[in-house]
Amino acid sequence: MDPSVSVDLNCDLGESFGRYALGEDAAMMPLITSVNLACGFHAGDPDVMAHTVALLKQHGVALGAHPGYPDLQGFGRRQIGLTPGEIRNMIIYQLGALNAFARVADVPLVHVKPHGALYNLAAVNWEAADAIAQAVFDFDRTLILVGLAGSVLVKAGETIGLRVVNEGFPDRAYLPDGQLMPRDQQGAVIHDPLAVAENALILVKNGIRVGGEKISIDTLCLHGDNELAVENARAVRKILSAEGVVISSLTRR
Amino acid sequence: MDPSVSVDLNCDLGESFGRYALGEDAAMMPLITSVNLACGFHAGDPDVMAHTVALLKQHGVALGAHPGYPDLQGFGRRQIGLTPGEIRNMIIYQLGALNAFARVADVPLVHVKPHGALYNLAAVNWEAADAIAQAVFDFDRTLILVGLAGSVLVKAGETIGLRVVNEGFPDRAYLPDGQLMPRDQQGAVIHDPLAVAENALILVKNGIRVGGEKISIDTLCLHGDNELAVENARAVRKILSAEGVVISSLTRR
Amino acid sequence: MDPSVSVDLNCDLGESFGRYALGEDAAMMPLITSVNLACGFHAGDPDVMAHTVALLKQHGVALGAHPGYPDLQGFGRRQIGLTPGEIRNMIIYQLGALNAFARVADVPLVHVKPHGALYNLAAVNWEAADAIAQAVFDFDRTLILVGLAGSVLVKAGETIGLRVVNEGFPDRAYLPDGQLMPRDQQGAVIHDPLAVAENALILVKNGIRVGGEKISIDTLCLHGDNELAVENARAVRKILSAEGVVISSLTRR
Amino acid sequence: MDPSVSVDLNCDLGESFGRYALGEDAAMMPLITSVNLACGFHAGDPDVMAHTVALLKQHGVALGAHPGYPDLQGFGRRQIGLTPGEIRNMIIYQLGALNAFARVADVPLVHVKPHGALYNLAAVNWEAADAIAQAVFDFDRTLILVGLAGSVLVKAGETIGLRVVNEGFPDRAYLPDGQLMPRDQQGAVIHDPLAVAENALILVKNGIRVGGEKISIDTLCLHGDNELAVENARAVRKILSAEGVVISSLTRR
Repeated sequence: MDPSVSVDLNCDLGESFGRYALGEDAAMMPLITSVNLACGFHAGDPDVMAHTVALLKQHGVALGAHPGYPDLQGFGRRQIGLTPGEIRNMIIYQLGALNAFARVADVPLVHVKPHGALYNLAAVNWEAADAIAQAVFDFDRTLILVGLAGSVLVKAGETIGLRVVNEGFPDRAYLPDGQLMPRDQQGAVIHDPLAVAENALILVKNGIRVGGEKISIDTLCLHGDNELAVENARAVRKILSAEGVVISSLTRR
Repeated sequence: MDPSVSVDLNCDLGESFGRYALGEDAAMMPLITSVNLACGFHAGDPDVMAHTVALLKQHGVALGAHPGYPDLQGFGRRQIGLTPGEIRNMIIYQLGALNAFARVADVPLVHVKPHGALYNLAAVNWEAADAIAQAVFDFDRTLILVGLAGSVLVKAGETIGLRVVNEGFPDRAYLPDGQLMPRDQQGAVIHDPLAVAENALILVKNGIRVGGEKISIDTLCLHGDNELAVENARAVRKILSAEGVVISSLTRR
Repeated sequence: MDPSVSVDLNCDLGESFGRYALGEDAAMMPLITSVNLACGFHAGDPDVMAHTVALLKQHGVALGAHPGYPDLQGFGRRQIGLTPGEIRNMIIYQLGALNAFARVADVPLVHVKPHGALYNLAAVNWEAADAIAQAVFDFDRTLILVGLAGSVLVKAGETIGLRVVNEGFPDRAYLPDGQLMPRDQQGAVIHDPLAVAENALILVKNGIRVGGEKISIDTLCLHGDNELAVENARAVRKILSAEGVVISSLTRR
Repeated sequence: MDPSVSVDLNCDLGESFGRYALGEDAAMMPLITSVNLACGFHAGDPDVMAHTVALLKQHGVALGAHPGYPDLQGFGRRQIGLTPGEIRNMIIYQLGALNAFARVADVPLVHVKPHGALYNLAAVNWEAADAIAQAVFDFDRTLILVGLAGSVLVKAGETIGLRVVNEGFPDRAYLPDGQLMPRDQQGAVIHDPLAVAENALILVKNGIRVGGEKISIDTLCLHGDNELAVENARAVRKILSAEGVVISSLTRR
């Protein structure tokens, strides 16, 4: 394999809230290169954010914002009918809140990846994708926008002038058109660590085809909130390293 | 009067929330030099924040953050037993959120003034005052911290190395020791615009005495949420101008 | 006109929240026969609920529940992608909360009318309508379910065995198929009190045609949250009384 | 020991929220006789409430309400400066919400026990205790009010005419005056299951002395949210059964 091939391993962390603990944050940190950190709307709170920024700084892991819908009970996984203007302001608010903890801890904010239902909407809806991209661009045009590989969000980010990266999901099955198989279909989520690792390698080596176009994968999403999280992450790292893929975080220009 | 005497006129605005309108924001803007803008915890929301920053930019009014307790129902006026660490993180979060709108609109954030019950606590409680001052300092040490004249918050800010300013309330009666008379006592709130204006002049000319020390007043708080707001503000401006007091916003060093 | 024709006049009230006042509650009470009272999810809070129940008791106005989505910022007007099970439990929760204040004040709960985006969804979506009707039936099968005249919600309520009533909107334009003209279309909202009153009379006399079927109107919705609210309500009462229509609240069997 | 001695074993359950799981609810059910069920203000949500009521019905465990402050992030453990009127309405709201799920599931609501910081305040503050007792009495005077043994809450309930019961904490150390040792003092929380069990027996046999008065313990609080919860509960049941204490739920007159 081309020795210059590299990939980022990202993980959604900082999803605890108050007394409610969620996610294998400490165990995942040594295994990943980027964190998508919840900003208090769908998960997280100011104390969790401060703690998680300190933790990732200690591990040298890159920081990204993971803004979501204002819906703690639904964990940001339910669509909410916001206007593009509401989405834009909601993103600016959350970027600023997280960036404050980054600033206080002297950790750079590197990327932005919308969460859950907002991520899914922005993958297919231009107005939502554009509102998100515009918010990121206006807040800081050197931030990297992360979206589903080949999605509308990636295109909206490019159009506005952001650096964008294409994300792949090694523990999810893809449909022939490059979309993720919906979670409620059988086989949509892959549980076997070896299969996850093999998928990761295929995604990095081959990319995916979306609408006839081949899209290279820049970052792989590793889940951090189930019992297999650590095992999956280790298997992915092992196979990528064995194949000479460089695992390194995204970097702002 | 010394021609160099000047004072800032500040007002708590941006306190609407969703469909709930509150405050004479548009009418107050031409009459004041600084806004304390709610950050979404006790009042305000991302859309209100974006709108209010645009409005104050248009009027050339300076922007300050007005962070409060996470208590929309209580409007931030009920004490909540937070630890100093929780206060610190809550302030950092709100400063960042507001600063994002400031950044997007290219408006500098100038000062920070805690709201309601948090303001009152920080006026007398060192731990709370120190947590607030530390949060402001760590977020941006060039920000100005606004506190009740002669209060513990002002002292905590000075100790940490912030520029601090002493605030006076022309529509409130003071106790002989320099404390505000509690709102539930008769005569605590002054409703006559002329009396408010005269108080404003006395505060600017004489300052107040707190614990034997004379404190100069740097900024006057004008309320913007009642029917007399505009009338009071006009009366204050008129008397100050007639007496040669310069009305100008606070400025960061 | 048939002397036995009667209609209920309902109004959404109790929509204030904490310090945020909304609605002409006190002025509307003498003009209406039923209140739809917000339950704290999209508007209202425990103190507002207690106060509003006391107010309507004093005026002899009937009490209905007005449950909505958990979205204070959006005032329950944004669709949220809840499952039928989530809708059902959310309705049960709100019915119980309001019923507690009714019980404490010894005021009977008479009807239930979903609010905003939930009302609109239930007008056309069977799963949502059925979840609401089931929740009402399971909580208290003697409650009356109020829905848009001829809507899916009314049918779902009938199917389950609830008493249902058809609601008309005298200040809204209807499409030929019996649907409300969407608010963002020109002419959708009628502002002239005389036109509102004439519409009210036509709705009561003729009902509306939905899908070829003639639907009688049992209750008219009067809005209580704008400056014309009181004037509109007076005009509607005047014309109905002049035409011999009996204005009286809904009653449980 | 007197063969007629009996005690209730209660546990705070239903504290999960949305995707956030908390507590060993299913494992604790067979070991207890009463549940204090969170009502959505400090923990729980409508779906969790519906699920927990179904679970306790299946196990034949008695249902109590566990109302708390509106503070999910602080889990109801932070004091909030509410007025007695606000406390009263907040309790009525939560009682009604939970009672709706009880009604739908045909499970009787038996008792009310305030949660966390509200419980602690009501143990020593007459105004708060009276507001809670009044809310319970007005909602349903046949409900049982549970308070810290010998506390102000128990006295306020008695004064109003409620049936009250005195609660003991076998995993907490007591001060000589009958108060709980504050959690932040060394030795305040007892972790050894055998010591917890012995404490339980002593509390049931001897009661506690509060201000010179001997108070009998009617119900023991077993915690359900830590890894020792099940082990502690089994040890308590074993020692009580061996000593002939009847374990049975509270019953309304």
